[in-house]
Amino acid sequence: MEYLLNDYTVFGDKDILTQVSNISNEINDGYYEGQYTKQINDVIKNLCNNKNINTFFLTAGTQTNALVLSALLKPYEAIISADTAHINFLEAGSIENLGHKIVALQSNNGKINANDIKNCVDVHNDKHKVCPKVVYISQPTEVGTMYTENELLELRKVCDEHNLQLYLDGARLCVALAKNKNLTLEKYANLIDTFYFGGTKNGLPLGEMVITKNTDFAKDFKFYMKQNGALLAKGEFISFMFLKLLENNKYETLANKSLKQASKLQTFLENKKVKFKYPPETNQIFIVLKNDVVEKLSKSFKFTIWEKCNNNETVIRLVTSFATSDETINKFFEEFNNL
Amino acid sequence: MEYLLNDYTVFGDKDILTQVSNISNEINDGYYEGQYTKQINDVIKNLCNNKNINTFFLTAGTQTNALVLSALLKPYEAIISADTAHINFLEAGSIENLGHKIVALQSNNGKINANDIKNCVDVHNDKHKVCPKVVYISQPTEVGTMYTENELLELRKVCDEHNLQLYLDGARLCVALAKNKNLTLEKYANLIDTFYFGGTKNGLPLGEMVITKNTDFAKDFKFYMKQNGALLAKGEFISFMFLKLLENNKYETLANKSLKQASKLQTFLENKKVKFKYPPETNQIFIVLKNDVVEKLSKSFKFTIWEKCNNNETVIRLVTSFATSDETINKFFEEFNNL
Amino acid sequence: MEYLLNDYTVFGDKDILTQVSNISNEINDGYYEGQYTKQINDVIKNLCNNKNINTFFLTAGTQTNALVLSALLKPYEAIISADTAHINFLEAGSIENLGHKIVALQSNNGKINANDIKNCVDVHNDKHKVCPKVVYISQPTEVGTMYTENELLELRKVCDEHNLQLYLDGARLCVALAKNKNLTLEKYANLIDTFYFGGTKNGLPLGEMVITKNTDFAKDFKFYMKQNGALLAKGEFISFMFLKLLENNKYETLANKSLKQASKLQTFLENKKVKFKYPPETNQIFIVLKNDVVEKLSKSFKFTIWEKCNNNETVIRLVTSFATSDETINKFFEEFNNL
Amino acid sequence: MEYLLNDYTVFGDKDILTQVSNISNEINDGYYEGQYTKQINDVIKNLCNNKNINTFFLTAGTQTNALVLSALLKPYEAIISADTAHINFLEAGSIENLGHKIVALQSNNGKINANDIKNCVDVHNDKHKVCPKVVYISQPTEVGTMYTENELLELRKVCDEHNLQLYLDGARLCVALAKNKNLTLEKYANLIDTFYFGGTKNGLPLGEMVITKNTDFAKDFKFYMKQNGALLAKGEFISFMFLKLLENNKYETLANKSLKQASKLQTFLENKKVKFKYPPETNQIFIVLKNDVVEKLSKSFKFTIWEKCNNNETVIRLVTSFATSDETINKFFEEFNNL
Repeated sequence: MEYLLNDYTVFGDKDILTQVSNISNEINDGYYEGQYTKQINDVIKNLCNNKNINTFFLTAGTQTNALVLSALLKPYEAIISADTAHINFLEAGSIENLGHKIVALQSNNGKINANDIKNCVDVHNDKHKVCPKVVYISQPTEVGTMYTENELLELRKVCDEHNLQLYLDGARLCVALAKNKNLTLEKYANLIDTFYFGGTKNGLPLGEMVITKNTDFAKDFKFYMKQNGALLAKGEFISFMFLKLLENNKYETLANKSLKQASKLQTFLENKKVKFKYPPETNQIFIVLKNDVVEKLSKSFKFTIWEKCNNNETVIRLVTSFATSDETINKFFEEFNNL
Repeated sequence: MEYLLNDYTVFGDKDILTQVSNISNEINDGYYEGQYTKQINDVIKNLCNNKNINTFFLTAGTQTNALVLSALLKPYEAIISADTAHINFLEAGSIENLGHKIVALQSNNGKINANDIKNCVDVHNDKHKVCPKVVYISQPTEVGTMYTENELLELRKVCDEHNLQLYLDGARLCVALAKNKNLTLEKYANLIDTFYFGGTKNGLPLGEMVITKNTDFAKDFKFYMKQNGALLAKGEFISFMFLKLLENNKYETLANKSLKQASKLQTFLENKKVKFKYPPETNQIFIVLKNDVVEKLSKSFKFTIWEKCNNNETVIRLVTSFATSDETINKFFEEFNNL
Repeated sequence: MEYLLNDYTVFGDKDILTQVSNISNEINDGYYEGQYTKQINDVIKNLCNNKNINTFFLTAGTQTNALVLSALLKPYEAIISADTAHINFLEAGSIENLGHKIVALQSNNGKINANDIKNCVDVHNDKHKVCPKVVYISQPTEVGTMYTENELLELRKVCDEHNLQLYLDGARLCVALAKNKNLTLEKYANLIDTFYFGGTKNGLPLGEMVITKNTDFAKDFKFYMKQNGALLAKGEFISFMFLKLLENNKYETLANKSLKQASKLQTFLENKKVKFKYPPETNQIFIVLKNDVVEKLSKSFKFTIWEKCNNNETVIRLVTSFATSDETINKFFEEFNNL
Repeated sequence: MEYLLNDYTVFGDKDILTQVSNISNEINDGYYEGQYTKQINDVIKNLCNNKNINTFFLTAGTQTNALVLSALLKPYEAIISADTAHINFLEAGSIENLGHKIVALQSNNGKINANDIKNCVDVHNDKHKVCPKVVYISQPTEVGTMYTENELLELRKVCDEHNLQLYLDGARLCVALAKNKNLTLEKYANLIDTFYFGGTKNGLPLGEMVITKNTDFAKDFKFYMKQNGALLAKGEFISFMFLKLLENNKYETLANKSLKQASKLQTFLENKKVKFKYPPETNQIFIVLKNDVVEKLSKSFKFTIWEKCNNNETVIRLVTSFATSDETINKFFEEFNNL
């Protein structure tokens, strides 16, 4: 069985994991108070060209979203997101579990816009309604699309005008950085108040790095981490891996490999005149296939059944990662040609 | 600087980490649906000699306690624990954050007894009070002592009589298993409803394994894991490490090393007529020292200042682990002799 | 200034309040353990013709919805409601504050249907999503419309097929009972698992009566009430008022007066060819007016600006109650004719 | 059966309830935006001689404690209280349900002291522990005793030194004001950051008035009220009753009556050489009786069995209120003499 199922099929990049085992006997301070946490923090400050940046390390995307967002909000404050947002549909109510409402806006190709945010704030105008305080976006989005720099500038502007924090879910930010090299980490750090740089989906066994300019948030976020079971005793292990992921832009090398394999799939499917559900911009490809085609493909490939279009057609999601082999891609072409 | 600070100073056992890196390219199913999770689950069922046992994997002790206990309780139900319990004092209010009260009983050497539990239940007898439902104990306790088999049997009995679940925090269960070989994993599984077998403090970079006979709990615990950000995409990585930790009783080999170093410290301190705050039964040793002695020792050693006894004396905690070297122990003897 | 603002402008029905003051020196047991609570409970069992019915008394609609719904749900379980549902838009995130997600369906005249509920359940099919468990409806709806008996039967059916509880917000149930006499309290008790009969909006200073067939829920709901500060020491005062509200169908007399005044408004506005935003079926009337008309009317009348239609038109809400005087209605006609 | 059970046995003061019914047809703005709320707010500002005072109205003590305290705290912040505190033992875990830990100090006659608070803060010194932020006291205490002015001054001082808020549960504050006339409402408002003035236990059917100097808290507390179902539509009804309770110091007249009846009981019991569990300072009297005496008394009187002393003796609680009749008191004397 070949996997085009997701970008977290392997334990991680072999080089990084080998380096971990090489220093397994080294003694370190616990709870992210050690040398590697300090080093990676400096690396990020330099890359973002901002000394007020702070970093924090968590283990998973859902944990990161839930803890950061709840730390940014009072109980009656809410999050504005796309209806397709990961926090709104695929995190089992983690945000609500910590007490907050998500006000979901209808999205366009996975994206929301400044005007809809403004209208949403206008409507939430008295004590009977929640009070929007954070705008949540994902880059790339959950449907594989990308916000342009202009779109991000407009979101920044509407947030400034309405006293909203802008938060970016960067589970696949490595892919975004590799795809649009004009949108650098420094630019994200300028445009966004708090975001995370995902490790799990680009080479690490686990680990997500929160990057924030919000110093009030940074001051007591470790209490939130501890209280929610996220302050790992051996946190240096995660910090060390991020240090290695940033070294020589390894994250970009891995993301480029993922994008290259996705690009091959895209070109092939375009030639085959397959209908795309969303514009294929990164390593997630959403296509519309006849149900019997889906069934045949599923005998050799694992992928995600995204949604039913109608009685005859289904949207499926194909995902590549740095670990997607040429063999898998070629086998997909072969199988598809033989359908 | 030498470390007698805790049992989580190194990333983990080199063999296990090397084996992780060796299979870093292997493709696995996500979210604990893969082969290694199945294998370790079978290993534990066999060791416990019980086919109804289920296992779950989390990343940290605080996370494990909070998620398991909240999954066992309705909002108005409470936990009975020792006042010295980790959940009561050292987890930053994680239990309360998920909505539950801890009713703390005065402990004796870190332990609680059946009679006090009975009285506690008797007092909580109407709708104005919380309703005790789970008894929380730690083995070894937070102060390094051990419940005997008889004590555990009595706790089991009082729980059965009052419809209480018995939960055991096994952050250092490996040490308990190595210390009292008569109390096997099978016995713990017989006596306790739900417990965890800690990985972080005995050889793994992270990872705690929940072992439960409670099938209602097991049925939907993954929802709790997901909702609280604990359902790791690459969970197989954790399951694999536990498989290796159980293989050839490696966990016991590691724990024995920890106990051996603790035993050397204990003998030395006994000979020196140092006062022990708690009976030294495992790898945590609590001693009472003059303040100036504490200050001198702290120039060469990292350890925990546990509490002030009075204006002149302080309790300190010394902890050993499998990674505690003979050099560290010998240097401690030397420094202490030179005081 | 005349009020067509809401149905809670006066302290309550004079008769009922006088009867309260008449027995103000009577000694009663506290916390809803007294004689009046027993009496009203029997009254409701008889009216519903069901001995397994239990009643509970709370002070406000938001409190009632939040406590009942959270008592019905495990943390990962969710509520399906209309997007226009009171809990979704006008209760300041009270449901989310207690940890639960609302999955909002697009409504039609404030109502949801069985087919959309089925599709919603089908999509929520794995551990990454919340698990729908309760369907929330309001009767009358938040936009003044009514579910027909057939519609309720279909909702009952889809709930039975998918193991969902059906919950009805009856903040204005008195009006519903008065409007459609064919849908008796007994029928509601047959069709719905748990609902409430609102007092605040129909004659009482405060008070909402929960009516439930769910005996598991009833068994421990008082713990939820106490824990959330809703178990009033002098609860008999509320129970007594409900007893008087039910006596000789006083609730119906009051609701009929409200409906009569609404009906006058409706007829007048129909004759004036005013556009209705929603079918005017009860005591809430939603009409579309030019902005300048709204401004002129607002000089003499208090009403709710519901939403903007476009740059020129606005939806306003007019509400009548048993306390709405003929003078107010006539003055409205006069002012409107003079516009 | 005669009641010495509690101070909430009757619906309320007849005068006040009659005045409510007299204006039952008056139209008012909802949600505490009306005339009576403004009036009572001015009355309190004047009595406290502080223009920055704000008032809020809730329905019950548990609700008040839970909402105010949770509004004062971030998730990782905690409350310091006596172990005998109402929030710690008699509110069914309401504080924990909203996410916060109570750190309970051993009390002396229901009171805590500045030194123990200081030590408690000192121990909570890192990210693994909750962060104490509010000190909770009750006046009178749950065991009927009173903090002196000096004791309150010392609590104020330790709070100022450690950046703690001082909160006072005034469920029976009317009795405290009547008992120690030197400790005026103005003095309480000077010494305490936020407190409440209880209505339920001194003449109202329900209602507790929060009085606060904390303007940050006041700014958004209505959101907390709404979100927790406490923002009553007809809140003016509660505000009006408080206005009447303050008019001509009616609250004091009522409390004096309660104290007078308690004083009679106290004198009688002292003469009888009955042992008092706590110094009898207000309207709650705790005495130690032989078990058979308790049993005989309980045939004619309702009172609270407080706790077992040993196999032969029991502590019972006797409570008086403004509604306790001379007949009840005399009958108690008679029965007791006949034992």
